[in-house]
Amino acid sequence: MTEAPPSPLVTSRLRTPVGPRRDDQQWWNAQRGSAMPFQRYERSGSRLPHELTDRTWPMKSLVRAPLWASVDLRDGNQALSSPMDIERKSRMFDLLVSMGFKDIEVGYPSASDADFSFLRMLIEQDRIPDDVTISVFTPARPELIDRTFEAIEGADRAMVHLCNATACLWREVVFGMSADDVQRMALRSAEHIARRAESAKRTELRFEYSPETFNVTEPEFVLRLSNAITSLWDASPDRPVTLNLPTTVETDSPNVFADQVEWMHRNLERRDAVILSVHPHNDRGTAVASAELAVMAGADRVEGTLFGNGERTGNVCLATLALNLFSQGIDPQLDFSDIDRIRRTVEFANQLPVHPRHPYAGDLVYTAFSGTHQDAIAKGLAAIERRAAEAGTATTEVPWDVPYLPIDPKDVGRTYESVVRVNSQSGKGGVAHVLKSAYGLDLPRGMRVELARQVQQVADGDGVELTSRELRAVFAEMYLDFARPALLLKEFQLTSEGDTTDIDALVVHGEGREKRLAGSGADAAGAYVDALAGTGLAVEIAEITGHVVSDSLGTRYAAYAQIGLDGATRYGAAIAGDEASARLGAVTSAVNRAHA
Amino acid sequence: MTEAPPSPLVTSRLRTPVGPRRDDQQWWNAQRGSAMPFQRYERSGSRLPHELTDRTWPMKSLVRAPLWASVDLRDGNQALSSPMDIERKSRMFDLLVSMGFKDIEVGYPSASDADFSFLRMLIEQDRIPDDVTISVFTPARPELIDRTFEAIEGADRAMVHLCNATACLWREVVFGMSADDVQRMALRSAEHIARRAESAKRTELRFEYSPETFNVTEPEFVLRLSNAITSLWDASPDRPVTLNLPTTVETDSPNVFADQVEWMHRNLERRDAVILSVHPHNDRGTAVASAELAVMAGADRVEGTLFGNGERTGNVCLATLALNLFSQGIDPQLDFSDIDRIRRTVEFANQLPVHPRHPYAGDLVYTAFSGTHQDAIAKGLAAIERRAAEAGTATTEVPWDVPYLPIDPKDVGRTYESVVRVNSQSGKGGVAHVLKSAYGLDLPRGMRVELARQVQQVADGDGVELTSRELRAVFAEMYLDFARPALLLKEFQLTSEGDTTDIDALVVHGEGREKRLAGSGADAAGAYVDALAGTGLAVEIAEITGHVVSDSLGTRYAAYAQIGLDGATRYGAAIAGDEASARLGAVTSAVNRAHA
Repeated sequence: MTEAPPSPLVTSRLRTPVGPRRDDQQWWNAQRGSAMPFQRYERSGSRLPHELTDRTWPMKSLVRAPLWASVDLRDGNQALSSPMDIERKSRMFDLLVSMGFKDIEVGYPSASDADFSFLRMLIEQDRIPDDVTISVFTPARPELIDRTFEAIEGADRAMVHLCNATACLWREVVFGMSADDVQRMALRSAEHIARRAESAKRTELRFEYSPETFNVTEPEFVLRLSNAITSLWDASPDRPVTLNLPTTVETDSPNVFADQVEWMHRNLERRDAVILSVHPHNDRGTAVASAELAVMAGADRVEGTLFGNGERTGNVCLATLALNLFSQGIDPQLDFSDIDRIRRTVEFANQLPVHPRHPYAGDLVYTAFSGTHQDAIAKGLAAIERRAAEAGTATTEVPWDVPYLPIDPKDVGRTYESVVRVNSQSGKGGVAHVLKSAYGLDLPRGMRVELARQVQQVADGDGVELTSRELRAVFAEMYLDFARPALLLKEFQLTSEGDTTDIDALVVHGEGREKRLAGSGADAAGAYVDALAGTGLAVEIAEITGHVVSDSLGTRYAAYAQIGLDGATRYGAAIAGDEASARLGAVTSAVNRAHA
Repeated sequence: MTEAPPSPLVTSRLRTPVGPRRDDQQWWNAQRGSAMPFQRYERSGSRLPHELTDRTWPMKSLVRAPLWASVDLRDGNQALSSPMDIERKSRMFDLLVSMGFKDIEVGYPSASDADFSFLRMLIEQDRIPDDVTISVFTPARPELIDRTFEAIEGADRAMVHLCNATACLWREVVFGMSADDVQRMALRSAEHIARRAESAKRTELRFEYSPETFNVTEPEFVLRLSNAITSLWDASPDRPVTLNLPTTVETDSPNVFADQVEWMHRNLERRDAVILSVHPHNDRGTAVASAELAVMAGADRVEGTLFGNGERTGNVCLATLALNLFSQGIDPQLDFSDIDRIRRTVEFANQLPVHPRHPYAGDLVYTAFSGTHQDAIAKGLAAIERRAAEAGTATTEVPWDVPYLPIDPKDVGRTYESVVRVNSQSGKGGVAHVLKSAYGLDLPRGMRVELARQVQQVADGDGVELTSRELRAVFAEMYLDFARPALLLKEFQLTSEGDTTDIDALVVHGEGREKRLAGSGADAAGAYVDALAGTGLAVEIAEITGHVVSDSLGTRYAAYAQIGLDGATRYGAAIAGDEASARLGAVTSAVNRAHA
C-alpha cells in the first residue's frame, strides 16, 4: 500500500461531540440502579496457589485428537427427565461403537437397576467389541463398589471409575467432613477397588479417579489426593491410571481452567503413568473452549457427550470438538460422515432435540439466507470447481476454502441443496443458486437481478422462506406462462443455406389474428427478429444463452434472451424439446415481458 | 495433612499390563483408516505477523460489563428462515429497550423494505427512548449508503455501521479485488458517509466500521485500513468511532482471537478515540469464550444476540455473557430478572426455540434428577437458610453458594419448585425435597429412604419422570391408603390426668370384628400402644415427628411414626385435622405397613 493516508474529513458534523460515549451504558443504568442483585455473588477467579505466570498453553496449538471418552450413557443419561430404557441405551451404545469410540462409560450400576441390567446384557450377550473398553461409575462407598463389581463380572475389559466431590462447599455442607476425612474416604475406596480387582481374574481392569468439583477445589489438596491415589493404584506407564478433572459446575472463563490443568500437568507425580483427562460442563457456555484450552495445557483425554447432553447445561459436546479438529485438517478419530444419522439416534436415545443452530449438526448451520452470503458461497463453490478442473482432479482433492462454510457439508453427509435458501433477505446469488442446484437452470446475470427483485417482493409480503418449488413458480410466472401474451409463436419452420437461415412462422400479435411471416438472418433468432418486423415489433437481440436440462420430463433445452425493444432491455426465457424452439421461445418471452 | 503417603498396593492384578493404553484409539483407528477426509482442510492457526509472546490477556479478569450492542434485529433477523415482520420486530425492540440495551442495531434498510419500514415507524412514531442509540447496517456502496441515510432521516441519534469483507478469500473469489482496491472502496464509502452526515443536521450521528472476516484477514492490512478509517472520520475521545472486529466465521480456538484483539488493541492509532468492539460467531461453539477472552484482551464492547440467534450457528449469546458476569458478582448492566418472559418474546420474534440446556435460560438448567445432586442442593439451600437465620437477615442477603446451582434461580425469576425433579436416577434427597416444597411434607430420614426406593422402582419401570403429584400418589399409596388395612382405628377418646393419658379406642384388627380397647401411657401414642396390646400387637414406638400442613383443604397436621414390630422397623404416616389423630394414625399406618 503506497497511498498517502487520507486526511481527516474535518467537517462541522464530525467536530460536534455527541453521545452516547464509551461509558454511557454504565451511566444510564447507574441512574436507575441495577435490576440484578449481583452483590450476592463472588468472583471465583483463579484458585491456583500462586498465579501461573509462566503458563505455556497460550503458545500451543491442537495437533492431534485427544483420547475421546463418551459419557452419554452415564452422565448424559442421569440428566434426562426420561432416562433411557434398554432399547434406547442399546441404540446409543451401538452408535458410539460404530463411530469409533474405544472408551465408553456405560452406566452407574450401583444407583440404577436399569443401568445394572443393561451392563449384564452387554456382557452376557458379548456385545462389547475387542477394541472397546467399557467404564462404570461408582461413588466412594464400599457397598456401592461391591455392587459395581457385580455388574461387570465376566467382562473381558473394564474401567472402574471412582468419583467423590472434593471442594470445600461439598465437604462442609454436604458431607460434614474435613479435607483429611475426604482423602481418607477416597483412599479407603480406592483400596477397596484394588482388593476387589484381585478376585476379578477374568477381567482386564483399569482404574479412573475423578476428584469431582475439581475446578472449585484447592489445587494443592487435589494434587496431594491425586498423587496418593495413583501411588496406591501403582500407576505405571504400561498400566496408566486415568485421572479425570471435571468442571462439575463451570464457574470461570476457560483460561482459568487451562491454568489449573497446566498446573496439575506440571506438578503431578508419575506423570507418564497418568492419562490426564478433563470433563467439562457447560454452565457458562464455554465447555468446548475449556476442553480445547485444557488439551493445549496438557490433557490427554476428554470426556463428553454427543451434542452436549448432560446435567443442567450439559457436558462438553464431542461432535463439536472432533469436527473443530477436522476443520483444521486434523484426523478427528471419530466417524461423523453421516451426522444426520448420528443426530437421529441421539435424539431418539435422549428424547431431546439438537438445536437448529448447534455447531456442525443443526438444521440451519450450513444455510445462508442473506443475499451477500449466498452470492459469496456460490462464487466459492464455483472457484473450487474451477480449480479442480484446472488441476484435472475431483473437487474433493482441492483444499476446501469457501466463504461462510467452515467445512464442506458433504463431508458430514449433508447436501448442498439446502445450503442456500431464499427469503426476503436473499439476493440474486441465492435465487440463482437454488434454481441451478434444484432445477439445473443457469440464468444470465441480468435476469437473476430482475428475478431476485420479484422474489424479494413476494418474500417481503409473506415474510416467509420460499422453497425451491415456489422459486421455480415465480420464475415460471415471470418468463414462461403469460396469461395474456402479446406475442404467440404458434408454428415455425427453418431452412438454412450457407450463412443464411430463413424462417416461415405463424404468429399471433396483440389483438390481431394469426399471421404468417417470413424472415431471414444469420441464425434462427436473427431470422425470427426479421420476420417480427412484419408485425411492427423492432426487436434487437443483445444475447441469447442456453443449455440442456434433464429432469423427470426427459432432456430438454433452456434458453435465455436479452433483447432491446422500444428503448428498454428485456429478458425472456423458454424451455423446449429442441434448441431452436427454446431460443425463439426466449425471444418471444422477452417481447411478452415488455407488455407484462 | 500429616499422614504418611499410602504405600502402593502391589498386587498381581495391578502389575499386569493391560489395555487400552494411552494411544490405543489412534492405533485402532489407524488399522481401518480415517472415516473423514481431514486432509482437505488446513490449520488456520494464528495469523498474527509474529507470535504474540508477551500477551497480557491470560493475566486479566473480567471486572465490569462491556458495552452491550444487540444485533438481534439485523444479524439475527437476516439468519431467520422466516424473518421478523413489523409485529415481531416491535416486540423484540421493546424487549431490548426494557432490558437496558442502549445500543441497538435495528436493521439493514438498504437490503430489505421491511427493515426500512420498521425504521421509519420507530422514528416517525417516536419510539426510541432518549438513552438509546439505534444503529443501521450498510455495505460499502454509495447507493446503499444513500438509502440507509433515507431510512434514518429525522432520528435524534443514530449510528451508521459500514461493513465490508477484507479477507483474502473474499477479495479474490467474491470481489476480484486487490487489498488496495478493497481499502479504496472502504475509504470511499466512509467518505461518502461523512459527506451525507453533513446534511443530516437533525440527527446526532456516530460511525461504526466492521472489517468483516477480520479473524481471517492479514492483521497488518486490517490495522492499516482501520487506522485510515478512524483518521478519515477524525475519531476523538469525545466523539469516538466504533471499530468492530468480527469472527464472521469462527475458525480458531478463542485464544487465537484474543491474541488478535490484543494485537489490535496495542497497535491501533487513536486508541482513546476508538470503541473497540467484537462480534463473535459460534461456528466452533466457542463464541462466548471468544468474547470473554477478547474483553480481557482489550475490547470495550460486544455485539451479539439474545440466546445466540444469528447466521448458521448464531452470534454470541448476550444472555450467557451477561449472566456469567452476574454469577461472579459483576453488575451485568442488563435486566434478566424475568428470563422466561425474555425467552418467550425472543422465541416469538425469532420463531426458533431456546434449547432446554441453554445456559441460564433452558428448561433443564436449574434441574437435578440425580440423587446425589438433589441431596447436595437440598443441603446447600438449608445451609443458606441457617446462615440467614443466624445472621438475622433475609436469605437473599447471604452470599449464594449452593452445590450444582451456579446462581439462585429466583434471581432470574425461576422458582425452586422445578429445581429438583424425580426419576429413576433420583434418591431420597430429591424425593424429600419435592414432597416438602410442593406439599409441605417433611419426612423423617428413614421414611425418605424407604419411599425413595419405591419411587425408583416405579420410575425404573416406567422410564419417565415423576411429577410432584405422582410422587405424592406413591407416598399416599404406601402410607395413607391401605386397600386392606390390617388395623383400623375407627374412633378414640383421650383423657389426661397428671402425667398419664388414657385411651378408649374402637378398632378392627385382622379378620376380626370391631373391638373396644382401653390403655394408658405417658402420651396419646403410648396409651394407644398399650391398648393395642389387647389385640396381640406388640408395638414399640421409636419416634414420632410431625408438623402443621396448610393446603387448599385448610390447616391440618401431618405425623410420621417409626415403630418396632415383630423385630422389624416400620414407618407410618397420617394427615389429620388434629395432632392426636395424626399421631395415632401414623402408628396405625406403621402397623399396616408391616402387613402391606
